[in-house]
Amino acid sequence: MIVGIVGGGQLARMLALAGYPLDFEFLILDPVPDASAAPLGAHLCGNYNDRALLADLAKRADVVTYEFENVPQESIKYLAEHTAVHPSHHTLAIARDRMREKTMFRELGIPTAPFAEVNSRSDLENAVAEIGLPAVLKTRTLGYDGKGQTVLRSPADLDTAWKQLGSMPLILEGYIPFDREISVIAVRGLHGETKFYPISENTHRDGVLLLSTSRPDDPMQQQAQNYAKRLLDSLNYVGVLALELFQVGETLLANEMAPRVHNSGHWTIEGAETSQFENHLRAILGLPLGATTPVGYVAMVNFIGTIPKPEQVLALPGAHLHDYGKEARPGRKLGHATLRAQNEKMLAEGINQLLTLAQPEIKI
Amino acid sequence: MIVGIVGGGQLARMLALAGYPLDFEFLILDPVPDASAAPLGAHLCGNYNDRALLADLAKRADVVTYEFENVPQESIKYLAEHTAVHPSHHTLAIARDRMREKTMFRELGIPTAPFAEVNSRSDLENAVAEIGLPAVLKTRTLGYDGKGQTVLRSPADLDTAWKQLGSMPLILEGYIPFDREISVIAVRGLHGETKFYPISENTHRDGVLLLSTSRPDDPMQQQAQNYAKRLLDSLNYVGVLALELFQVGETLLANEMAPRVHNSGHWTIEGAETSQFENHLRAILGLPLGATTPVGYVAMVNFIGTIPKPEQVLALPGAHLHDYGKEARPGRKLGHATLRAQNEKMLAEGINQLLTLAQPEIKI
Repeated sequence: MIVGIVGGGQLARMLALAGYPLDFEFLILDPVPDASAAPLGAHLCGNYNDRALLADLAKRADVVTYEFENVPQESIKYLAEHTAVHPSHHTLAIARDRMREKTMFRELGIPTAPFAEVNSRSDLENAVAEIGLPAVLKTRTLGYDGKGQTVLRSPADLDTAWKQLGSMPLILEGYIPFDREISVIAVRGLHGETKFYPISENTHRDGVLLLSTSRPDDPMQQQAQNYAKRLLDSLNYVGVLALELFQVGETLLANEMAPRVHNSGHWTIEGAETSQFENHLRAILGLPLGATTPVGYVAMVNFIGTIPKPEQVLALPGAHLHDYGKEARPGRKLGHATLRAQNEKMLAEGINQLLTLAQPEIKI
Repeated sequence: MIVGIVGGGQLARMLALAGYPLDFEFLILDPVPDASAAPLGAHLCGNYNDRALLADLAKRADVVTYEFENVPQESIKYLAEHTAVHPSHHTLAIARDRMREKTMFRELGIPTAPFAEVNSRSDLENAVAEIGLPAVLKTRTLGYDGKGQTVLRSPADLDTAWKQLGSMPLILEGYIPFDREISVIAVRGLHGETKFYPISENTHRDGVLLLSTSRPDDPMQQQAQNYAKRLLDSLNYVGVLALELFQVGETLLANEMAPRVHNSGHWTIEGAETSQFENHLRAILGLPLGATTPVGYVAMVNFIGTIPKPEQVLALPGAHLHDYGKEARPGRKLGHATLRAQNEKMLAEGINQLLTLAQPEIKI
């Protein structure tokens, strides 16, 4: 089977690594000549809207998937007209638009922070009046890792924010003083079967995920899973879906969903019976889903902007290095390490050591 | 770092899959255009004694390793003169010659079956007189998976055996009515650090490995490990070494060693903290070795000559498929599945199901 992936970053790379043992081959569409996933498949090197490359991809691939939401909508639509594409074009259209996404959450009875559509300066005034401050003004599309958003703390912030973002369709969301950020990685097969990984507790720095941990029997597991299941079934979804939520007391508020494998699920490579990458491939190819049961106590630390020497990571007991082979740039995700331990105490010790390697100035 | 591998079969393929997360690149020397490992690196397609390709390999690779013992001796010697090669040329010369190998075992105090060198028909008579029957006549070099050997049960068998094998340097070995076959996968780092995996219990069919299982706290672990350690240190070995042994009562008799990753260690991908493939790479690149501790209860079943449909394997809880992407031929190793279970009972049930898929006519 030949799997096409739109986007050749680390998610595509880890998908391909998970797919070789199942004897899948990969076609990678990415404009960057040294894309992270390029060595692991045939590289269609060109823009995401290059019609000739898209036609080639559609012709050769048995199924096409994508590793990021911001791929041009028309490209996915074109591909879907010529081959199987999972998750669907329809799902992507919702997931890439915060307004449609939040509206869907609301329609499915999944709690969210208060939100309002903002298309004009007066919309913004009205939204602030309704939601109150602090609040977060976000672009409806194209935001990721904290980009395309700004926090409004006082009425004086509105001018600056409007100047910064006002040219784009926006959404204003209530600022949530959450207790923790969690995510649930869910997967739905071609025939409707669903599975859910143990939820991840996520810590961000400067808007970028730094640390994910997962504990057995998290008290919020069932609630998170129920919300994810509503989304999966309602979208007739195929593949892995990540749902990010804020926990406030005993309540979960949905923040956003990602129609793809997700950074907060990287720990599943070593820490679950079947990784999110393998299960995404199993799902989109109509194969039985694999067990999502945890294997040991696990955590994942991202290497952002800088990556330790391999010998530093590999010397830590239970640490597993994933270097994406990318050139270092500030703020860029260059790799991660999963830590697998036999108990919580060993895990906590290992996390501290990994965080010291990842960002020497930070301790948790 | 660029790793060269002589041989592009499934062992090279699994080495490469283990190496990408560490950001290694691979050069694969193999004469077969659709070699199993070829999609995972730059493929130098040509014969193992092609001097131009060897020169290219030596020039581009930071370190070279090999996936089988029968690579031409002169090729490895040439490579070793131009770049780092692990395991060493010297080790390879011993491991590929049953007579030198058994002599080394004897010199290190590692018990073996009785054996004698056979270079003539009269040598054969003398060896049979000394060792008795039944005995096994083997070529000193180039044998694998039961090839190049024949069992002598009565004096009448000598003529046939001599006609079949007499043109090559031979060794006669006493036939061991063993209780079980085991192997220990050992690894030694560039700086002398050693680690040992839990031993595997191996079941062969028609001379080819069919099943490996590994249990925690096997009573023969320490003895097997001691013998492997003598070999590693004596050879100043770098990389993974497999030592196959027969158990007779409480005694272990060394059968042969393989200076490479080994089929009976494939279960370590899912069943150990660090796989044999990753540890081989760590060793030859001078990185810290990873833990060899077991993860769950595991077994491995080979798919020989025929491979089940992926959905059949993936439907079994805890089963992990490794399809090498090779064309089916009778007797050819096409893939394997690892089974990881939470206890021995679940493991035993899973093994039976996998064996039924692997070879419908066989039950254990």
